[in-house]
Amino acid sequence: MTAAPSDRAPAIVLANGHYQSSYAKTAHGLVRGSARYRVLGVVDPSAAGRDAGELLDGVRRGIPISASVAEAVTAAAERPRFCIVGIATSGGVLPPELKQSLQEAIEQNMSLVSGLHDQLAADRALVAAARARGVELIDIRRPRAFGELHFWSGRILSVQTPRLAVLGTDCALGKRTTARLLVEACRDAGMRAEMIYTGQTGWMQGARYGVILDAIPNDFVSGELEHALLECHDHARPDVMIIEGQSALRNPSGPCGAELLLSAGARSVILQHAPGRTYFDGLEEHEVNIPSLADELALIRLYGARTLAIALNSQGIQPGERAPIRTRLEQEHGIPAVWPLEEGVARLVPLVRALCEGQPGAN
Amino acid sequence: MTAAPSDRAPAIVLANGHYQSSYAKTAHGLVRGSARYRVLGVVDPSAAGRDAGELLDGVRRGIPISASVAEAVTAAAERPRFCIVGIATSGGVLPPELKQSLQEAIEQNMSLVSGLHDQLAADRALVAAARARGVELIDIRRPRAFGELHFWSGRILSVQTPRLAVLGTDCALGKRTTARLLVEACRDAGMRAEMIYTGQTGWMQGARYGVILDAIPNDFVSGELEHALLECHDHARPDVMIIEGQSALRNPSGPCGAELLLSAGARSVILQHAPGRTYFDGLEEHEVNIPSLADELALIRLYGARTLAIALNSQGIQPGERAPIRTRLEQEHGIPAVWPLEEGVARLVPLVRALCEGQPGAN
Repeated sequence: MTAAPSDRAPAIVLANGHYQSSYAKTAHGLVRGSARYRVLGVVDPSAAGRDAGELLDGVRRGIPISASVAEAVTAAAERPRFCIVGIATSGGVLPPELKQSLQEAIEQNMSLVSGLHDQLAADRALVAAARARGVELIDIRRPRAFGELHFWSGRILSVQTPRLAVLGTDCALGKRTTARLLVEACRDAGMRAEMIYTGQTGWMQGARYGVILDAIPNDFVSGELEHALLECHDHARPDVMIIEGQSALRNPSGPCGAELLLSAGARSVILQHAPGRTYFDGLEEHEVNIPSLADELALIRLYGARTLAIALNSQGIQPGERAPIRTRLEQEHGIPAVWPLEEGVARLVPLVRALCEGQPGAN
Repeated sequence: MTAAPSDRAPAIVLANGHYQSSYAKTAHGLVRGSARYRVLGVVDPSAAGRDAGELLDGVRRGIPISASVAEAVTAAAERPRFCIVGIATSGGVLPPELKQSLQEAIEQNMSLVSGLHDQLAADRALVAAARARGVELIDIRRPRAFGELHFWSGRILSVQTPRLAVLGTDCALGKRTTARLLVEACRDAGMRAEMIYTGQTGWMQGARYGVILDAIPNDFVSGELEHALLECHDHARPDVMIIEGQSALRNPSGPCGAELLLSAGARSVILQHAPGRTYFDGLEEHEVNIPSLADELALIRLYGARTLAIALNSQGIQPGERAPIRTRLEQEHGIPAVWPLEEGVARLVPLVRALCEGQPGAN
């Protein structure tokens, strides 16, 4: 997951006005770490002057937040070569104020990187400006032509390497970060663990294998996912593949997860959960409840997989409540529970090792 | 579902070599009935000379099967204006022999209709021939631009009209046909029932509301489905919307169904099942078992929906076995079971009426 600093391209990240909300989860992921980009600064007038790491999770990382692109360039220790859209926007569109920042970045000779559905390449003004400056517009969610897509073949079913999916009971509660921490912890413990990304941020963070699921035509989702796993298996020969989940099995705004269990053949799950949340993220006005953990574990069992542990998100939870919640959940469900961001994921490593060693019943 | 014959465009259907397999399920649906096209003939050298209806289900429909496009035109009572690709092909591609038939159809002044992923408009020879003859190439699975797609809004959750999903334990076992028969039976019984199609054949059969799910970028599947339901609700003001399912909740080659229960808010299900099948359709070599009915009913319950009845597919089942199987399943699961193609769906109509009348616990 890590690369020598010199391999990584210097970049700034746009989070215009949203750095302190879950809309900026791409920016948060990039601040936490990327093997593809070296993040020099974040742009967000509403949090200018703060350290991006400290504001995110209390850990200073020397990444200043600036009020504008020009100020971010001035504040940076070296010239940024890329400007990355670090927020999800309503409807996936490029709003005017974001386009304004992107124009400023082009004028500062930066190439643009975006994972929004609304393509940079579809905006004439950005295309003209980029051409004039000789910089690139990189749309990582660019729809691909039919001939580039893979149908599901079933070959993955004969691959013995264990697949572990990090699913969640909701969106935006830390599935990708838990997957990333777990890959790093397993590598530190001597296992050849590979992360399979499934969203734009995973790609931006530099995971080598994966696919951006939400841009793929529905009929090819299972096949593209299988293809990413087979590529990883054939090239990296890992001991374990840890697959980043998307959304939640029962999120009405876009259920996801069955593909990871069935089409990717993940027989083991780490289930991310936010005990402080009542309603699905973004569905508060519709009052759609997040299902109970017990129900979610039963659902995962019906999909043929076993949940090894629960990973917890501390939104709305006081520090003093963490230990009692963990104890209660471990007693109720009979599996370990961890707070990954607060306590790390060391307790999950032996569970993954058991999978890799093929202990009876472990996969 | 029906239109005056004069409203329907005369057409022939290509099933080259596959009419007697489930690859030709689009052709089968069109032979069973379409409000969009009047099917004059089917092309399949391997079954030439037979009646397409009789070969399908023993009911003569006066639709001859011919060995070639030219012979189909000669055999037809009037000039066909459209030639429809009636088969699914491996990988969704247009194989050479199919292109040959399509060229012949253009030479006979027919416009082409295809629901394959491989676009007619991407084949230079077909494009040139169509231009020369002044006929159209209609790709019904044409990928749409970002700006044409809808995100899920949640508005459907406040719509009171009951939604009934016809799900299945496998692909290609009659979900669409059961949905269509049920819509017709409900209309005959005086209900305003609307079908929501989710695949290419539903569109070809002339259902007014729906979406071809498998061509949609994954992130927009739930929103496009919701949009189709809202359009139906706003324009047709139906008593009930009956949604065609795709694939199966646990089909590893591409699970589907959770969107219908969660994003479309279908709280009621008719579950189609083929008791004579052991492995998922197309996954026989991988020996992936179709899950048990009891398990599937439990899974549907976890998604917040209630299964009203089981609809059975008779593949591999002798006529004398039907009644005992029905009785056994009704006893095991405590809900009605029907053989739609063999006995009709009349027994399901009161269940739908109860939904429409909002009987306590009915939705």
